[in-house]
Amino acid sequence: MVQLSPETDTASYELNGKYNPDVYKYCAGYQYEDKTIVGFSHTHFSGTGHSDLGDFLIMPTIGALQLNPGTADKPGSGYRSAFSHQNELSQANYYKVKLDDHNILAEMTTTTRVGFHQYTFPKSDQSHIILDLMAGIYNYPDKNVWTYLRVVNDSTVMGFRQTNGWARTRTLYFAMSFNKAFFKHGYKKYDKREVYGGFWGKFNKTENFPEIAGKQIRAYFDFKTEEGEKIKIKFAISPVSMAGAMNNMQTEIPGWDFDKVKNDGQQQWETELHKIEIKGNQETKENFYTSMYHTMINPTIYMDADGQYKGIDQNVHKAEGFTNYTTFSLWDTYRALHPLFNIIEPKRNADMVQSMLAHYEQSPEHMLPIWSNSGNENWCMSGYHSVAVLADAIVKGTVTDSNTANKALDACIATATHRDYEGIGEYMDHGYIPDEKSGVSVSSTLEYAFDDWSIAQLAKKLNRMDVYETFMNRSANYKNVYDPKVGFMRPKLANGEFRKGFDPLTTINEGFIEGNSWNYTLFAPQDPKSLIQLMGGNKRFTRYLDSLFTMNLPDKYFAETEDITRDGIIGNYVHGNEPSHHVAYLYNWTDQPWKTQERIRMILPRMYKPTSDGLGGNDDTGQMSAWYIFSSMGFYPVAPGSDQYSTGSPAVDGATINLDNGKTFTINVKNQSAKNVYVQKMVLNGKPLTGLLISHSDIMNGGEITFYMGSKHR
Amino acid sequence: MVQLSPETDTASYELNGKYNPDVYKYCAGYQYEDKTIVGFSHTHFSGTGHSDLGDFLIMPTIGALQLNPGTADKPGSGYRSAFSHQNELSQANYYKVKLDDHNILAEMTTTTRVGFHQYTFPKSDQSHIILDLMAGIYNYPDKNVWTYLRVVNDSTVMGFRQTNGWARTRTLYFAMSFNKAFFKHGYKKYDKREVYGGFWGKFNKTENFPEIAGKQIRAYFDFKTEEGEKIKIKFAISPVSMAGAMNNMQTEIPGWDFDKVKNDGQQQWETELHKIEIKGNQETKENFYTSMYHTMINPTIYMDADGQYKGIDQNVHKAEGFTNYTTFSLWDTYRALHPLFNIIEPKRNADMVQSMLAHYEQSPEHMLPIWSNSGNENWCMSGYHSVAVLADAIVKGTVTDSNTANKALDACIATATHRDYEGIGEYMDHGYIPDEKSGVSVSSTLEYAFDDWSIAQLAKKLNRMDVYETFMNRSANYKNVYDPKVGFMRPKLANGEFRKGFDPLTTINEGFIEGNSWNYTLFAPQDPKSLIQLMGGNKRFTRYLDSLFTMNLPDKYFAETEDITRDGIIGNYVHGNEPSHHVAYLYNWTDQPWKTQERIRMILPRMYKPTSDGLGGNDDTGQMSAWYIFSSMGFYPVAPGSDQYSTGSPAVDGATINLDNGKTFTINVKNQSAKNVYVQKMVLNGKPLTGLLISHSDIMNGGEITFYMGSKHR
Repeated sequence: MVQLSPETDTASYELNGKYNPDVYKYCAGYQYEDKTIVGFSHTHFSGTGHSDLGDFLIMPTIGALQLNPGTADKPGSGYRSAFSHQNELSQANYYKVKLDDHNILAEMTTTTRVGFHQYTFPKSDQSHIILDLMAGIYNYPDKNVWTYLRVVNDSTVMGFRQTNGWARTRTLYFAMSFNKAFFKHGYKKYDKREVYGGFWGKFNKTENFPEIAGKQIRAYFDFKTEEGEKIKIKFAISPVSMAGAMNNMQTEIPGWDFDKVKNDGQQQWETELHKIEIKGNQETKENFYTSMYHTMINPTIYMDADGQYKGIDQNVHKAEGFTNYTTFSLWDTYRALHPLFNIIEPKRNADMVQSMLAHYEQSPEHMLPIWSNSGNENWCMSGYHSVAVLADAIVKGTVTDSNTANKALDACIATATHRDYEGIGEYMDHGYIPDEKSGVSVSSTLEYAFDDWSIAQLAKKLNRMDVYETFMNRSANYKNVYDPKVGFMRPKLANGEFRKGFDPLTTINEGFIEGNSWNYTLFAPQDPKSLIQLMGGNKRFTRYLDSLFTMNLPDKYFAETEDITRDGIIGNYVHGNEPSHHVAYLYNWTDQPWKTQERIRMILPRMYKPTSDGLGGNDDTGQMSAWYIFSSMGFYPVAPGSDQYSTGSPAVDGATINLDNGKTFTINVKNQSAKNVYVQKMVLNGKPLTGLLISHSDIMNGGEITFYMGSKHR
Repeated sequence: MVQLSPETDTASYELNGKYNPDVYKYCAGYQYEDKTIVGFSHTHFSGTGHSDLGDFLIMPTIGALQLNPGTADKPGSGYRSAFSHQNELSQANYYKVKLDDHNILAEMTTTTRVGFHQYTFPKSDQSHIILDLMAGIYNYPDKNVWTYLRVVNDSTVMGFRQTNGWARTRTLYFAMSFNKAFFKHGYKKYDKREVYGGFWGKFNKTENFPEIAGKQIRAYFDFKTEEGEKIKIKFAISPVSMAGAMNNMQTEIPGWDFDKVKNDGQQQWETELHKIEIKGNQETKENFYTSMYHTMINPTIYMDADGQYKGIDQNVHKAEGFTNYTTFSLWDTYRALHPLFNIIEPKRNADMVQSMLAHYEQSPEHMLPIWSNSGNENWCMSGYHSVAVLADAIVKGTVTDSNTANKALDACIATATHRDYEGIGEYMDHGYIPDEKSGVSVSSTLEYAFDDWSIAQLAKKLNRMDVYETFMNRSANYKNVYDPKVGFMRPKLANGEFRKGFDPLTTINEGFIEGNSWNYTLFAPQDPKSLIQLMGGNKRFTRYLDSLFTMNLPDKYFAETEDITRDGIIGNYVHGNEPSHHVAYLYNWTDQPWKTQERIRMILPRMYKPTSDGLGGNDDTGQMSAWYIFSSMGFYPVAPGSDQYSTGSPAVDGATINLDNGKTFTINVKNQSAKNVYVQKMVLNGKPLTGLLISHSDIMNGGEITFYMGSKHR
């Protein structure tokens, strides 16, 4: 729930009254090339495009009090400090940096709901801890709706911050404890308008007053420090109340032993990261475990230690029998992240399923989550991909309770028949979304068709065959937007005619979201066989795929893509966004499956590097990384909702998956190298594998698969 | 908790960017001379000067939808409607009015936490219920911090309104049920800035969408009605949550029987109003029971049916063993309202004591309430008069539990020694507040001295004699601001000299709040004997009192007074504000006690009339009315914290106080008339009363007192 980490800057959505294109740059608040750190805040997304959060920024300083952050180009203009990467150490559950301007060593670690700061000060009579309640990522005027701060005693502070942003109506509460009494504290309020009414003028509210409220507040706490003295701060957060935050703190970190908290947390990380043990060279290991780390940051817990959480209905609920999660970037994560969880984190994924069902029950719109942020729905991106997560978890046996499964199917049906949402009504009537109805009619039609197929799989599992039939029929709807004349999916009008004028390379105004028709035309992972037929058969389809990977995309088209680096594209194949994540595996349904192996091994080193700019696009809360983990082990869940994985070409020299059920699934890789990317044969539990699929139960029952690799395709 | 009533208008604090002098006019939202009703909202103060509230305004209309209220001078310019007093009926727990513009009969009644509306519509295809979340009393830009509304189903709506006003950080939640499904609903949002982030644009949010959030929202719910069809609305509020509001509704009004709710509530009012049964003419009865009604509106319950409430620390608490109250206008009400409660509402007053102690425990400043509004502290007015309420309740035996009593004394001491608050530190050091420290140094010194005396009485009761000594010493501090050279209390500098220049008639900048030195010099109700000595003895003091009541106050001085009508002043005696409420009784300590009797009978008919503008000043949440009740029965609590009442001159022809303990105290009045205002003798339980005091136990033990009246003083 808490993601305590440094921020080098934030960008406002507006700059001088206009949209600021830099706003996305700071979606997580940290840019490696920046030279200053502005502070350490407690909530961050991991690799989202759009952003929010950055709550409760803390900064230690010495000398004359400066409550403004200042700017990076003017040293000394504010509380921020220069730093260098030489003095920086970043580990799972531990971050350390020297703040050069203040000669302060900053260290931090966490538990689930509490950030633990440790600042080693020089000798100073003017040592400050600044708590900036104005700071935030993706900021703009009126983002802060209200903030409140209460100094309970000389070492305890509580408060909350209410924002209106990507999470529309969101309040995050906190409780903050110092290991040493501050001798003075104060505030500055930057609100344009003072509070009307009330006789607060009786007090000197700027110094040593116990409370303050308003929209724009910065606070400070003053200490006198000896050389090397450590000021420690426990900072707990809660979506429910200040009392909830304090209870979280007392439950998770009763004492002041920083090293113990750090070590305990790192031990937990060790356990999680050891769920897959690989063989490989250093670069492969760095890539692999960086990816593993990335897959474990989001979704995030959104619940107090006592089980209470704020629901999307703005009421406080108690999670009975599950841990409540938020931060569901489902357009991205249904593809490989949640399938990965079904293997290595089934308990967490089952909790996420319960969280989605609770969201559904509490949702004013009676829909499963689209993009859940801090218990709010922001409706970001398209499709209703929760259904694929639910179907995948139930089909694969992660969730077995029959009541839950049937409730899940009901929620899927309700969501998928919500006629008012993004053209669903028209989709149900026409079998596709007419172009008149939506600017992303084609990609939504394709995504709905896939989602419908996953609902059908869930219905089949539950033996609700009428539902199965309905949604299997709907799952073929992708065919309705395919124009055989041009060989692409394209916008179709309500009258059944395709819209005039069409450029399959452009991303803008052609009926697709974050992708062009060249990529999206391949989006029928539920039925590659039929797609190949639809697109002219094996030969034409293979040629289409080849072209995708090898064509030269003019710069003007690249400029239209979002969220990806120039390296995030191979030919016209976009890996930096998600819609094509299954595409390299489609060769498996042609007569040239070795090209899947070749492409995977082309994509892996180009899109994933162990450097500060190593990813070819946003990690999107773990989806990019989950693709890496699957693909580097040699298989991938092309169609979540199915219990089958398509094999590819392992890039590791071996892997052991330590399953929660006590079993292990071992991947042996013989003779793999940068050249030996082709699978010569595969042996599953001693028997040669016929075909290119392995099943979920093959993995979960334990056993081993051996890939024999070579430099020539078979 | 709910105060559902009509509003004829509201005034904004600002008008065209400047302060609007009309803002106080609408402190309760209703002005008798107004010709239009703008709607019916659920929270109102009773007779405060400053204001707030006016939450959740509902208005029924027909015809073309108008979401703006319009203005009174332009008929048809908005949803407001003309009405006339002929078509208006106002009773305890029932209000009825014909809305002429819409041909709708509006009726309303309540339970503790639920407003029950009943609107009788004409036949119309366009019948609307408007819910204006922007409306409020004492409004201005940014008053609304946030509002949220959720349409749960076609007859249930929930939401909240968060404001920043006289209550700085306040959220009121609601749950609303209709007796008939609306066929359509919608919103209009008037926010200047749209929400950033989020893909809400996917929806048509203005019609039939289930939720909306923002700062400035109006909603409507549409019906088709037959001639005479009743649309009923149950509207529950909660300081805690929407779920709490819904539970309040289900607990208090499970069904739809409007008449039953009305009758049940009126039966409760009957019981309460019968706590004192008087004899007298019609005008006296109207005055008396209007006053009784006024004393029972505030303080208000601030707690859900399940005992949960939001504390001043912004956390949710559960009231264990008491009912939590707010709306404590203590500068006013410690004088006679809470003393009256000790006689006729001891259970409620004991709950208020517990509520004040909870406030103290939850207060960031660790102080008892000064002016508690919706569980917020607004610090309005001076003194720390909670202590007098606590002392009075404990000394008089309303609260008997020793733990509570000692906790109360501790809270009193903590509050009275809070050096940072309004000159308390200087007061403790100097024995008075130096003029340099405070603009109201004299009145605060006088009020602190009285409050200190009440703390001493409490300490004596608890046999904590060191505390008694300390605070008895402090209680004489009033003497320190008396200048014998001029014969008035006046501002004193830190060096012990009186400030140069002084006008005892002016209210502005002379060291007093809401009163001039002429009135405030008499403020030592704890020790009239010593005050008389201080002011030159019996003869000079009596002459002073006579002058006060008979002098001709120039208009320029009247213009400086606040919150009172021109009739609210007799000579220079200001009854429309509170500091002189004990003054008429001070003659009892001179050799001319008959002048107390004379003055009381002069004040009563001049300050209290059974007309729409009948009070000589703000009722101040019941204090003005409590003065009426006591004085018209012939006695008054000159010094709360003492168990003695001073006798005056009864204006009723008899009264029976029906005590909660089952006993009755009867006041017989012989031969009373507008001329026969002088007490000839008093007989208490068959024995002639010697002296001018009766004790609280005389009343609470039951019995009778007989006043024999005559036209000549004795």
